[in-house]
Amino acid sequence: MPQFSNATIVKAANIYYDGQVTSRTVIKEDGSKVTLGIMLPGTYEFGTDGPEIMEILSGHLKVLLPGEDGWQEIQGQHTFHVPGNSKFALEVFTITDYCCSYPV
Amino acid sequence: MPQFSNATIVKAANIYYDGQVTSRTVIKEDGSKVTLGIMLPGTYEFGTDGPEIMEILSGHLKVLLPGEDGWQEIQGQHTFHVPGNSKFALEVFTITDYCCSYPV
Repeated sequence: MPQFSNATIVKAANIYYDGQVTSRTVIKEDGSKVTLGIMLPGTYEFGTDGPEIMEILSGHLKVLLPGEDGWQEIQGQHTFHVPGNSKFALEVFTITDYCCSYPV
Repeated sequence: MPQFSNATIVKAANIYYDGQVTSRTVIKEDGSKVTLGIMLPGTYEFGTDGPEIMEILSGHLKVLLPGEDGWQEIQGQHTFHVPGNSKFALEVFTITDYCCSYPV
């Protein structure tokens, strides 16, 4: 069962879209941050500061990435990259479990 | 900001009630387990194996504990104890962030 060891986990949740999207912040052993999150069905738009790597652990969704002219459909495990200082849109069809990391 | 250090967090979420209740499992430095969870508005019933200590971090809800004849209303930070091998009911009015621990 994949897990992060020797990590720091912030107790309080991050809450977006009235709780339709929630996450917990984890600081990994190497000092880098990930957020482990859940998205319930709905349509969302998020902005990035730095680049993000979104690893979908489970779920069925579509994503519209900046600079792309079409939606990408995702079912189950899949990873996509989001540039920094950009926006991306998501249409979530089934409950989606994700791990987002923030490369520097 | 309260946090767990030197802990292990399981990557995949625990999902209940079609995602209306979700949590992540954390193994603390001392080896004991907690789950950090979110409950969206709704009515739920949960069963326990061992005793549980539910720390509400934020939210507005009512709980009906086993052996009690009335619902207890909770707004914001509050902790309640649930006996082992029992059932308890929750009516959640606003998104509720919690930390559940499992004393042995």
